[in-house]
Amino acid sequence: MVTAMLPWSAELAGRMSEHVISSELLRGNPLGDPHERPLLVYTPPGYDAGPGRGYPAVYVIQGYTGHVAMWGNRAAFRQPFPEAADAMFARGGAPPAIVVYVDAWTAYGGSQFVYSPGTGRYHSYLCDEVVPYVDARYRTVPDAAHRAVMGKSSGGFGAMITPMLRPDRFGALATHAGDSLYEYCYVPEFPAAVRHLRGYGGDIFRWWDDFRSRVSFTKPEDMSLLGLLGVAACFSAGADGTPELPFDPVTGVLRPAVWQRWLDWDPVRMVPRNAAALRGLRGIWIDAGTRDDFNLDVGASAFRAALLEAGVAEDLIHFELFDATHAGIDYRYPLSLAWLCERITDLAHLGQAGVDARATISRFLHLFIV
Amino acid sequence: MVTAMLPWSAELAGRMSEHVISSELLRGNPLGDPHERPLLVYTPPGYDAGPGRGYPAVYVIQGYTGHVAMWGNRAAFRQPFPEAADAMFARGGAPPAIVVYVDAWTAYGGSQFVYSPGTGRYHSYLCDEVVPYVDARYRTVPDAAHRAVMGKSSGGFGAMITPMLRPDRFGALATHAGDSLYEYCYVPEFPAAVRHLRGYGGDIFRWWDDFRSRVSFTKPEDMSLLGLLGVAACFSAGADGTPELPFDPVTGVLRPAVWQRWLDWDPVRMVPRNAAALRGLRGIWIDAGTRDDFNLDVGASAFRAALLEAGVAEDLIHFELFDATHAGIDYRYPLSLAWLCERITDLAHLGQAGVDARATISRFLHLFIV
Amino acid sequence: MVTAMLPWSAELAGRMSEHVISSELLRGNPLGDPHERPLLVYTPPGYDAGPGRGYPAVYVIQGYTGHVAMWGNRAAFRQPFPEAADAMFARGGAPPAIVVYVDAWTAYGGSQFVYSPGTGRYHSYLCDEVVPYVDARYRTVPDAAHRAVMGKSSGGFGAMITPMLRPDRFGALATHAGDSLYEYCYVPEFPAAVRHLRGYGGDIFRWWDDFRSRVSFTKPEDMSLLGLLGVAACFSAGADGTPELPFDPVTGVLRPAVWQRWLDWDPVRMVPRNAAALRGLRGIWIDAGTRDDFNLDVGASAFRAALLEAGVAEDLIHFELFDATHAGIDYRYPLSLAWLCERITDLAHLGQAGVDARATISRFLHLFIV
Amino acid sequence: MVTAMLPWSAELAGRMSEHVISSELLRGNPLGDPHERPLLVYTPPGYDAGPGRGYPAVYVIQGYTGHVAMWGNRAAFRQPFPEAADAMFARGGAPPAIVVYVDAWTAYGGSQFVYSPGTGRYHSYLCDEVVPYVDARYRTVPDAAHRAVMGKSSGGFGAMITPMLRPDRFGALATHAGDSLYEYCYVPEFPAAVRHLRGYGGDIFRWWDDFRSRVSFTKPEDMSLLGLLGVAACFSAGADGTPELPFDPVTGVLRPAVWQRWLDWDPVRMVPRNAAALRGLRGIWIDAGTRDDFNLDVGASAFRAALLEAGVAEDLIHFELFDATHAGIDYRYPLSLAWLCERITDLAHLGQAGVDARATISRFLHLFIV
Repeated sequence: MVTAMLPWSAELAGRMSEHVISSELLRGNPLGDPHERPLLVYTPPGYDAGPGRGYPAVYVIQGYTGHVAMWGNRAAFRQPFPEAADAMFARGGAPPAIVVYVDAWTAYGGSQFVYSPGTGRYHSYLCDEVVPYVDARYRTVPDAAHRAVMGKSSGGFGAMITPMLRPDRFGALATHAGDSLYEYCYVPEFPAAVRHLRGYGGDIFRWWDDFRSRVSFTKPEDMSLLGLLGVAACFSAGADGTPELPFDPVTGVLRPAVWQRWLDWDPVRMVPRNAAALRGLRGIWIDAGTRDDFNLDVGASAFRAALLEAGVAEDLIHFELFDATHAGIDYRYPLSLAWLCERITDLAHLGQAGVDARATISRFLHLFIV
Repeated sequence: MVTAMLPWSAELAGRMSEHVISSELLRGNPLGDPHERPLLVYTPPGYDAGPGRGYPAVYVIQGYTGHVAMWGNRAAFRQPFPEAADAMFARGGAPPAIVVYVDAWTAYGGSQFVYSPGTGRYHSYLCDEVVPYVDARYRTVPDAAHRAVMGKSSGGFGAMITPMLRPDRFGALATHAGDSLYEYCYVPEFPAAVRHLRGYGGDIFRWWDDFRSRVSFTKPEDMSLLGLLGVAACFSAGADGTPELPFDPVTGVLRPAVWQRWLDWDPVRMVPRNAAALRGLRGIWIDAGTRDDFNLDVGASAFRAALLEAGVAEDLIHFELFDATHAGIDYRYPLSLAWLCERITDLAHLGQAGVDARATISRFLHLFIV
Repeated sequence: MVTAMLPWSAELAGRMSEHVISSELLRGNPLGDPHERPLLVYTPPGYDAGPGRGYPAVYVIQGYTGHVAMWGNRAAFRQPFPEAADAMFARGGAPPAIVVYVDAWTAYGGSQFVYSPGTGRYHSYLCDEVVPYVDARYRTVPDAAHRAVMGKSSGGFGAMITPMLRPDRFGALATHAGDSLYEYCYVPEFPAAVRHLRGYGGDIFRWWDDFRSRVSFTKPEDMSLLGLLGVAACFSAGADGTPELPFDPVTGVLRPAVWQRWLDWDPVRMVPRNAAALRGLRGIWIDAGTRDDFNLDVGASAFRAALLEAGVAEDLIHFELFDATHAGIDYRYPLSLAWLCERITDLAHLGQAGVDARATISRFLHLFIV
Repeated sequence: MVTAMLPWSAELAGRMSEHVISSELLRGNPLGDPHERPLLVYTPPGYDAGPGRGYPAVYVIQGYTGHVAMWGNRAAFRQPFPEAADAMFARGGAPPAIVVYVDAWTAYGGSQFVYSPGTGRYHSYLCDEVVPYVDARYRTVPDAAHRAVMGKSSGGFGAMITPMLRPDRFGALATHAGDSLYEYCYVPEFPAAVRHLRGYGGDIFRWWDDFRSRVSFTKPEDMSLLGLLGVAACFSAGADGTPELPFDPVTGVLRPAVWQRWLDWDPVRMVPRNAAALRGLRGIWIDAGTRDDFNLDVGASAFRAALLEAGVAEDLIHFELFDATHAGIDYRYPLSLAWLCERITDLAHLGQAGVDARATISRFLHLFIV
């Protein structure tokens, strides 16, 4: 390939390493998905030449239907996030950090980064396997205060809930349009699903069998039903792993007990019972587009309000709504990444790099152009 | 006007009489709306020449933003419902009946046909003033068994709940795309309202002041916020009549107590506690378009399921989904009207008209053309 | 009905008279439509008591699928145009004028106010029958300088072309979102029609037969194909009256000779060859919504540019784009009506009414509220 | 990366080689784009082990905003085309062929594969540099009869016109939703552009400067205006390379001379004057989705009709409309690739591979699943 030539490719100033992690926690997962997983670890410029100094680390997780190899996807007039992040570090846009790209793909297209008998132990896989794997192989500062997690959409959801549940693992987070306030992001999908399922006798598994037997996404209902089935697998699988829908697929009537299982995973509703963990974080970035297709801008507002209500200090939070839908907002990731890096970096660790950490967000927006 | 010439006008075979009813129940209503109300009463062909025989009566109520004078609106290639209904009676498409067109307009554009400190005593106005008014002036069979109520959208809602609450007044109903299963017809409007209200400081009354100060419906948010405010006025007004929104207008978070007041008016949820009343009805027509903009086809399915669950006999119910959105379904009204007329007519009362009552629905569809 | 009570009705300060005009020009029209037509003539406050003084007259024509009885249609939170116009005159918002509501309905839903072997002699009917009919029965100033024509959509088209072709009849015009620049208002409909016609073997008459045999507008293609067929009937009917489509209905390829017949009726293209007539007008009002569904805001810009190019004085033209789609812009009609009245009124005729004619447009916007 | 593990990666049965071609024709191009270009050449299973035998070659070109590195993009539940194509060859789904992935990216996002003073000599680059480059380095059958070109959207356009103009180079083609019948694919964009340009003083270069100064595609108008500017650069650049719009950006009025330059590049209109070349091809695959966002299904119908009219034998053509929009139709490429391979393969060259060439299209559809 043409080396370091935009738009086709770019030479990194840092280094991206590909790993395969063999997960004991995912072995024998209910969907028969691979327990060997790709993992990308980025080290910033200067890392290889560096002394014994430790680096903070930011873990990046993905939205639904994302898998880690998609970080290499290229688009017109925009750089892939890993390249944009590298460029940011190269120009001193943030204190240097290790960036870890985690994979949590499943046969349903995602895992929501929770434990579920429907998909597997992805929450623990992230916290108890990926993190130690990285700490063992890279010069991290191996504690929660120097570790952040970030993501978009389902990845934003994962970024919200993981530090709540495991403050021993993550000390900061960034959520871009993360799933939240489920009345508004999920419920509007339910009547749509009822309509779609009329063509499948009200049986989502008939659709699923059909979906797997043909070219994917050739029917208008495919994406909507896939998301529904996948989230049900994560939030409301039966003991045997079978996803249960939170509503009657013929009448649409909510099934209160199942729906409650979903609500129990609503980040807005999870805040009060995890208030202490949240108050202990070093930084929480929340953003979303004002025209988000799943109303996640409203969810973002609600999440922020819940944090403040729970006693999280206002200056720990960066909150921002901007003009966008749910799509095309990858250009925001370097902004939150830089912000997180500043938050989880101790100036004492930095030496002279600390000077560069004063970079402002507006600078990135100016530079994030192919 | 050109007499009896389509599309401009039509001469009725029956007779439409305009009344003004002076309502004691609406006098001094909280919005200062007129307590003198127009009322249209239609008598079918043969009524004037008829002997002492009594007629069943069907009360027709309207959707949100409808008022009774709008029954005279004309459209391209379709007859107004009162003319189509008249034509149906004229050709013997149903046993003759009196048809009463009721007005429940308010300053907010509607009343949901309930009692509310926010709008007034519209439920009682219908049951305890309009019905006796008609019975006193027309040769009705003055009992619930010979009285039906029908409507579309908010009018469909009114048609569902009124016989539940007052089985002494109404013995049959028809709902076309009636408000129901509020998670799906109302909740999706809430995040949209949060977005709209960002421009009004989160204060719906600022929008309302703005709306009243200018030409209506010149801003995209007007219809959505009007409906929200109006329904809140009906379902969740404070003691002083001020509408309370069922969610925080800035974060979108549901206010459980207020939202519960809405849910208490969800026809699907009202069925179990009014099961006996519903089991006693003579007929329940339920229909909606499969692409209804407010998911009221799903609501229709849920309402029907709730009825069956409550022990309503299946043969009392006509249930039908058809290809349509929420708009343009007025051509369905003569179908349900004819069906209701048959249901609330005793053959003993009819004499030979009974023969014609065998008309089928498909016949109407064929004939309902300008 | 409740007299003069909004929203149900309003008592006019002026007077509306219903006429039936028996048209020789429409007798035996190709579609078999009635040659007796309703006509509404409005006389302003003071007319009946007035001395021998003459009044200017504004002729109002309608958009596609409109017929004259639809001027009585009522809507939520807005007054019908005839009432709003009356209120405007009553408060001195414009010099008094006679307002004539003309009907040009056909079996296809409209006539475009042209002569066509496909629909009939509607252009001459307007110019040579309706105008003399009114002049003979009302105290008009019976010349073009005191006569204007206005309309929306197809009515705006009619308002643009009629004074061009008959400057002896009309001396001013107002077009609201009038059909123009046919590449943008009509061409995008053609590929949609090709798709729709796949279900009818590429034969629009098969659709037409189907349309007439069932309830209208119950299929998504109905409105689009009706408009196409109707405009073809007006612009490109064969000698025997059969509409010819301007494109091959299977491949979509334009038929140049037929398409040219349409283009010959494009107001933008008609301006140069009718420049003298247009330069002689007393006023030309042009407006449209910036989000017009048929791009008629762009057409409006092009029409204005063509006028200026043709030497029409800039101060003869009122041009305005405003935030709206093609729907819901009836509130604009009183604005242009008032403007036209001022334009076609000679102050010498007015006496003291002239004082009130100084009303500004912004005043109407403030007052045009139910 | 996890080797040969879906969805993250796949091991190819054949081999993909990356080249950098140094183009003399693109050197000094008007946009200052690189004249060194990436080129991907795929050789099928058996190629490396093969005897002296020659292979046919299929050149794959891309849609607007595509560049060659994007062939590596991965998506949920679908394989990238190069992998799907490899899998097809591996299972004997078509006679083996070399597949060449060509890059024609420009600063405007594309080149339409024509010569233009606005973008460069991309037509000749493809025909006179890339083809000889491949022939010199791979065991092709180096004549037009054994060479095909295929693409989607702008790439489909390039696939239609290149063999017309250079039948000495290409003997078959496949167009998926290729740009054609410009009244329907381009004209509807013009009024949209007029509206967008209101915010830029009617000056598309003001937008272009703005676009390049910020994050791309963060304004709703970006994609539409980029495409317009880019196509104007290809079809109607001035002698100095400045793109000229085919319409007045303020009034929308077509500029006939400029618009004619676009029409001269309409494949449907190009057919008659290139009839002989087209009659000499070995195969023409045409398909599009019935809901194509740019009406290219209608364009496809028109292109086919023009071919038949021009005397192209019906059995040379595969024509197919299927249920889809303009997006997500990459799963069609293996179908046309297999079909082209059969068309440009002489069984005499094949040996036993010929047996497998009987594969049917339905087989691929079944197998093209991750």
